[in-house]
Amino acid sequence: MPSFSWLLALYLAALTGNTDGAVARESTERNCSLTPPYLPSTAVNTSLQLEELRVQMRAMNISAYIIPATDAHLSEYIAPRDARLAFMTGFTGSAGTAVVTLNKAALWTDSRYWVQAERQMDCNWELEKDVSISSVAEWLISEVPKGDEIGFDPFLFSLKTQGDYNINLDSSDRSLKSITENLVDKVWKERPSVPPDNLTRLPDRVIQRTWQEKVEHIRTQMGDNPYKPTGLLLSALDETAWLFNMRGNDIPYNPFFYSYTLLTMDEIWLFLHVERVTEELKVYLNASCEGALCVQLKGYDTILDHLKNYVTRPGVKVWIGTEYTNYALYEVITPQDKLLTSSYSPVLTTKAVKDETEQQILRDAHVRDAVAVIQFLMWLEKTVPEGNATELTAAEYVDKCRSKQKDSRGPSFATISASGPNAALAHYSPTKETNRRLTVDEMYLVDSGGQYLDGTTDITRTVHWGKPTEMQKEAFTRVLMGNIEISRTIFPSGTRGVNMEMLGRRALWEVGLNYGHGTGHGVGNYFGVHEWPVGFQSNNIGFRAGMFTSIEPGYYKENDFGIRIEDVAVVVPVQTKYGNNYLTFDTVSLVPYDRKLIDMSLLSSEQLHWLNKYYETIRSLVGAELDNQGLHEEKDWMLRNTEPFAEIGSSASVSSSSLTLIALAVAMLHNIV
Amino acid sequence: MPSFSWLLALYLAALTGNTDGAVARESTERNCSLTPPYLPSTAVNTSLQLEELRVQMRAMNISAYIIPATDAHLSEYIAPRDARLAFMTGFTGSAGTAVVTLNKAALWTDSRYWVQAERQMDCNWELEKDVSISSVAEWLISEVPKGDEIGFDPFLFSLKTQGDYNINLDSSDRSLKSITENLVDKVWKERPSVPPDNLTRLPDRVIQRTWQEKVEHIRTQMGDNPYKPTGLLLSALDETAWLFNMRGNDIPYNPFFYSYTLLTMDEIWLFLHVERVTEELKVYLNASCEGALCVQLKGYDTILDHLKNYVTRPGVKVWIGTEYTNYALYEVITPQDKLLTSSYSPVLTTKAVKDETEQQILRDAHVRDAVAVIQFLMWLEKTVPEGNATELTAAEYVDKCRSKQKDSRGPSFATISASGPNAALAHYSPTKETNRRLTVDEMYLVDSGGQYLDGTTDITRTVHWGKPTEMQKEAFTRVLMGNIEISRTIFPSGTRGVNMEMLGRRALWEVGLNYGHGTGHGVGNYFGVHEWPVGFQSNNIGFRAGMFTSIEPGYYKENDFGIRIEDVAVVVPVQTKYGNNYLTFDTVSLVPYDRKLIDMSLLSSEQLHWLNKYYETIRSLVGAELDNQGLHEEKDWMLRNTEPFAEIGSSASVSSSSLTLIALAVAMLHNIV
Repeated sequence: MPSFSWLLALYLAALTGNTDGAVARESTERNCSLTPPYLPSTAVNTSLQLEELRVQMRAMNISAYIIPATDAHLSEYIAPRDARLAFMTGFTGSAGTAVVTLNKAALWTDSRYWVQAERQMDCNWELEKDVSISSVAEWLISEVPKGDEIGFDPFLFSLKTQGDYNINLDSSDRSLKSITENLVDKVWKERPSVPPDNLTRLPDRVIQRTWQEKVEHIRTQMGDNPYKPTGLLLSALDETAWLFNMRGNDIPYNPFFYSYTLLTMDEIWLFLHVERVTEELKVYLNASCEGALCVQLKGYDTILDHLKNYVTRPGVKVWIGTEYTNYALYEVITPQDKLLTSSYSPVLTTKAVKDETEQQILRDAHVRDAVAVIQFLMWLEKTVPEGNATELTAAEYVDKCRSKQKDSRGPSFATISASGPNAALAHYSPTKETNRRLTVDEMYLVDSGGQYLDGTTDITRTVHWGKPTEMQKEAFTRVLMGNIEISRTIFPSGTRGVNMEMLGRRALWEVGLNYGHGTGHGVGNYFGVHEWPVGFQSNNIGFRAGMFTSIEPGYYKENDFGIRIEDVAVVVPVQTKYGNNYLTFDTVSLVPYDRKLIDMSLLSSEQLHWLNKYYETIRSLVGAELDNQGLHEEKDWMLRNTEPFAEIGSSASVSSSSLTLIALAVAMLHNIV
Repeated sequence: MPSFSWLLALYLAALTGNTDGAVARESTERNCSLTPPYLPSTAVNTSLQLEELRVQMRAMNISAYIIPATDAHLSEYIAPRDARLAFMTGFTGSAGTAVVTLNKAALWTDSRYWVQAERQMDCNWELEKDVSISSVAEWLISEVPKGDEIGFDPFLFSLKTQGDYNINLDSSDRSLKSITENLVDKVWKERPSVPPDNLTRLPDRVIQRTWQEKVEHIRTQMGDNPYKPTGLLLSALDETAWLFNMRGNDIPYNPFFYSYTLLTMDEIWLFLHVERVTEELKVYLNASCEGALCVQLKGYDTILDHLKNYVTRPGVKVWIGTEYTNYALYEVITPQDKLLTSSYSPVLTTKAVKDETEQQILRDAHVRDAVAVIQFLMWLEKTVPEGNATELTAAEYVDKCRSKQKDSRGPSFATISASGPNAALAHYSPTKETNRRLTVDEMYLVDSGGQYLDGTTDITRTVHWGKPTEMQKEAFTRVLMGNIEISRTIFPSGTRGVNMEMLGRRALWEVGLNYGHGTGHGVGNYFGVHEWPVGFQSNNIGFRAGMFTSIEPGYYKENDFGIRIEDVAVVVPVQTKYGNNYLTFDTVSLVPYDRKLIDMSLLSSEQLHWLNKYYETIRSLVGAELDNQGLHEEKDWMLRNTEPFAEIGSSASVSSSSLTLIALAVAMLHNIV
């Protein structure tokens, strides 16, 4: 799945009782310039919550209040109880910032969501078609009187967000006021609660390193750090879950649980909802003691007090990763010399490289996942010509195929099932209103993934059941060439993805095509489907052997069709002729591409060779699993779709070998003549 | 020339009376652990200057003084009078930082220069094998007592350097003290003076935009800026020189002159050595009035006072480019709301895109430059087998060839003329001690460039006059493939070089080879040979049509040989099948590559095709110029060396067309049989 977060939209839609998606067909946008204003049925009346919020604002003596879209862990995907932006504005898009003053309210969001915002918001809200903090700040300066204060919840601001507001408000004589009690929560009477479910630990069979080993390993890194931190604060939800080999269900599709960890050289404090920890789990965590390998359980909401308390101890220094630590925690670590920062905590950088067991089980999960996707593609091939499949039934079916696989734990995000022009919206998920029947006349894109106890998957295939146009074939082939060029490239260990991702675009650029999303992101072992900081984005870390990333170039033709080819690959060492420490990718997603859409004449011989090797791997690994599961029809389908393509040899040897053949033929000719 | 600055070394060597280069053969490094210490003849006695500097330090009540390697304009190449680091330490390398305390002295430099430092420094100096500011700061914290101050010249610190020291000294209870009078200058009795020569203006034939037009254009950008700057401060030497179409001779090989400009919406203040401005130039600059298009000439040393004065005016806001503004100027622009920053000033970003005239004359200069290089290569081919050529005589000869070309203004940097193992040191320039005879048994690398009134050139060719090894051929061919892959790639306007430069490395990576320098840098019109911010470095701006950059992958085998293939190319628009606003490179360096070193079997058909098109261009453009200059022998040599290679067609069409031929032949065969 490409990296911007829209999957939340569906959940938020349910939350606000609003089932209208981003792309509904009805022309029902609000018109606030009429008297009385015209509001579509999809608009949410926000007068009451605004009125109540302003009561809270007056009590705090602030003239404006900023409401971001994230949670206290700066998560990419949030739980319904953190959907404060949607509650206040009615707008359920995944990206945006709202600001409320004593007499105005405004929402900032990007172009993907402008139509949706006009449909969901009432006339209490201005829509600002910008997303920069400088634009929010300019608006604040024009609306907030000099000398007044602007409130924000420091738990929902990253250090960078706070810094950016500060720079932009600098010397404007308006200042930020950090208010740790969230004002929206005070007026949100029906705010969803934290799930009551017990937390779980991973079974031993999917684990190589116990939590004790992980703790020791991280402590070694703390000891090795020249700045000698005494404590490490973990804020991102996957940091704590990874460290203790535990999982929860607090965020849709993401098996995380609300938590923080403060790991010192001789203590471990785990902040979470203690009532969700069973007695068995307490034994597992060694929770009844206070030694170096005892996990002391503390209430989730007590993190700030405990952290404050810890930094009053003499000689302590707390290490934080600035990308995932919120401003509330940062601002209590004073004075400055009690703080040590890096972009990412050592837990995130350690987790980025999978251990041998994690690598093996993540590969295994992808083999079973391939069986599910192959089953699904075969079903579509039969069902679509009969005229009964739609985007929604297809999405249901692929989920069902996955659910039958061993250790399945549901989808890893809301399936993107998009036909024809719907696929041109890279952030599309089908709704009742937008649902399209699948036909042999349209291209179809399906981007889906599964959670398994042993791994998280994410794969996109684009298919056509009829006769694709030349342009569709060319675009598809060039997207495939991009995927292959990244997959087969050889590079020194530590090379950053952002410096190689143009290989995914180059064949498209050659004919003036491109795509507007990222080229790939890390994936987890039963974790987030976007597992940062691995991937091809500019803030991602360099590739090392053992990292997993998606590779997903695409092409989108507005109002016509969309193409994306996404595979997950693991970074592996490769033997080169002269050098050491070189790496390449090994693709672990094992589903064939639509042959009908490949224009063989465009592929280089190296690309062709890669493709045939990849198909051999599918035949061997998925073939065995299909046999295992007794899926004979699926196996035949797979074999048909992985027939080797005719290969001529490498582009250099082509010339010489074919010239030899010609020479030979001509020579024979001459002899005979 | 790859982007780290060593050309200064030669000048500095002359300055300190030290002619020993970085790579002298004698094992004459100092040994400070002996009693008395052993010092080679190349070591400089620095006791006197250290003693005198410490007197100055005591007078200022500081416990340490930091001496960087740059000048007040943060120039990459500096004038002899700015070589304070060399004067204090004896060390003449181009990169380093020195720190003097009341009883110790230490130099930080990178691995390229460790041997050189051990040869040039006496035992007053510790050598710290690191270059990070955090390492300098750690040393300072251990050597400077708590509560004491560390002095620095704010004219020699960038904002970033000052900030980095500050962060690293933060909460250590040692603070930085900005001292605008340089303490080294106070003890440097024989400090070279500013050249007395008159400044010059460019002739009209090489200019499209007058300085008045440039001023208006920059003022328009100031007016369009939403932060409404009232003034623009220009600090980099090429900013002022470009704005006024003027040149000087203050820095070896770089036609710059010491200057700053403060451009406001209705005034122009030019800070320079006024005595070097002729009456004619004063008329040209309209220097006798004070209006919006009058240039008011102010003394170079009065910039700080005038700037301080300007910022006391109500409502002013000064725009600076942070990459080239020194801390001394930055710190007087207070309060903060009088300051507007961007990485680069609008002059640097405007200058980066050459106008039509600049493009044309820069292309023209490259045609004449190619004649000189071809003459040189032909001469080598004759002279080397006779056994009389050396690295030094070759360097002299190429300079001589260039000097005969129209509008020549000397070399644009010290020629890198390197045979065999010497070429493996990417920063090598020959000296008397290291000078190697050129033979048919060694590879030879020559990286050289010229200043012409109409343009600056920079080209590297690597040749072999005997029988290269298979490894040499493979490495050369893969370097060439890298050069071609960048040159022929098509990309959207605005793509950053750093995101494409791996194309220059990919063919090398494939077999585990790589190189350790940048892949290219902008070049100027009779300006710097490294003209930032254009190029492939991480802090360079995105490519736009009209920018010129070098493309220079390489490979270096320690103690054996070095390969670099460098061309200058201009970014040009390209028509694509589907999209608009796509660009590619058009190579303007026009000298053939050594055919003997190309392994044709490695090239793709696209690379081969590019190479043949390039050779066609050389034949047409350089052929005409050789005819013009009546250089018949050179023309024959050029034609021989640009014979087209056998081409088979694109890799895809290879297969089909050659298969057709075979089929045809076989069909004929059958008919006959």
